[in-house]
Amino acid sequence: MLSKAVVKYIKSLQVKKYRNQHQAFVVEGAKSVLELLQSGFALQHLFVTEDFLRDHTALLAKGLKYEVVTEEELVKAGTFSSNNAALAVASMKQLQPLQISPSDLVIALDDIRDPGNLGTIIRIADWYGIHNVVCSETCADFYNPKVISSTMGSFTRVQVYYLDLPAWLQQHTGKYKIYGAALSGENLHRMQLRPEGIVVLGNEANGIRPEVAQQVNQLIKIPAFGGAESLNVATATAIIIDNFRRNS
Amino acid sequence: MLSKAVVKYIKSLQVKKYRNQHQAFVVEGAKSVLELLQSGFALQHLFVTEDFLRDHTALLAKGLKYEVVTEEELVKAGTFSSNNAALAVASMKQLQPLQISPSDLVIALDDIRDPGNLGTIIRIADWYGIHNVVCSETCADFYNPKVISSTMGSFTRVQVYYLDLPAWLQQHTGKYKIYGAALSGENLHRMQLRPEGIVVLGNEANGIRPEVAQQVNQLIKIPAFGGAESLNVATATAIIIDNFRRNS
Repeated sequence: MLSKAVVKYIKSLQVKKYRNQHQAFVVEGAKSVLELLQSGFALQHLFVTEDFLRDHTALLAKGLKYEVVTEEELVKAGTFSSNNAALAVASMKQLQPLQISPSDLVIALDDIRDPGNLGTIIRIADWYGIHNVVCSETCADFYNPKVISSTMGSFTRVQVYYLDLPAWLQQHTGKYKIYGAALSGENLHRMQLRPEGIVVLGNEANGIRPEVAQQVNQLIKIPAFGGAESLNVATATAIIIDNFRRNS
Repeated sequence: MLSKAVVKYIKSLQVKKYRNQHQAFVVEGAKSVLELLQSGFALQHLFVTEDFLRDHTALLAKGLKYEVVTEEELVKAGTFSSNNAALAVASMKQLQPLQISPSDLVIALDDIRDPGNLGTIIRIADWYGIHNVVCSETCADFYNPKVISSTMGSFTRVQVYYLDLPAWLQQHTGKYKIYGAALSGENLHRMQLRPEGIVVLGNEANGIRPEVAQQVNQLIKIPAFGGAESLNVATATAIIIDNFRRNS
């Protein structure tokens, strides 16, 4: 059974301040917890249902400490409206210093506020073999439970760095081609793109900030054929990265 | 002020049974309500905040009946956690009979359950000038408030039809090329795609059902370069349709 103190601790990790204080975060659902167990993150707690235990006996037999609880307890402690599998608390990991080379493709996010968008973008980065995502300090927090769950396990493979984006881009001017997504950009379908450089995506409502746009060498756009004014930023990221990867 | 009876009526429209009974649905937020006001949907109710009224005096001066309410009232009646703009109740519209031609690009959805995914796909269809989306009867309901809000106004331009998908696809075999998204499909980046045909996307967890897959002529996949096992279905739809539209 989940004690009141543990439920309180898990709930506190929904808030960034307490995540940072405890250097810990929550992972929910079968897919995400399975990916966590096979990653380099250290476990603090692992709670599983009997069903999950039955389906993953081999994995859990490897000397992992876990506790069997009910679905109701997982829902009570976590953020999901249903969870018949597992919930874990893991320790945050120290990031390796950010190292990129001019042959890398890097996603840079300027003020992406929605946790679901950030998580989906991390999943897209992982699909396309992009190891580094760079975020302005105002982006949603990587360890937010909604970010973690939206990545569907990709949080274990993609490194996300928070930094002063205009300054960082300025440091990379010249050696790296810096692209920015904007409705006034050049039509992606008509460009010959090499799968390298830095691709900047901007805020859901306001796009790229002027101080970031100043560092961009080439504005690009996804051509529109119909009536919609815009695309969701995660959708746009996927389409743009796919266009870059066509020539990989 | 919003009366208790009106709040109760608006709340009831969160449930499909009552939407169908009243042939009405709810539209929330500035962008969606503005698109609604410029569409062919008939209005039943329009509630606006003073701020929204001030920003759209010209639009609202055109003889529209509306009532000024507070942000708190909009939040109380609707599904948004914040809404400082508007909420409308509109009447459902009779769909035109579904007519497609072999030069059309059509999206067909097999058992897409998540309202956010369906709404995002409708927005993507609108961006790429796709007028018809065909759904299996088990897909999320078009008039679900979460579907409507995720379309960001595109619900006014895209027609969504619910039908027996295997039977409908069978009727179109021969005259239409039917593509299906599957991890075992042919690499999209290596194909010469014409922007026409029917593109089938399957359920979030289980993909395309066997009885639907039987009607597919060509399986296609988005090439993977990294560790993620899959992409969100709306993300996948966007990438696939972008690949079809490259040669438009």
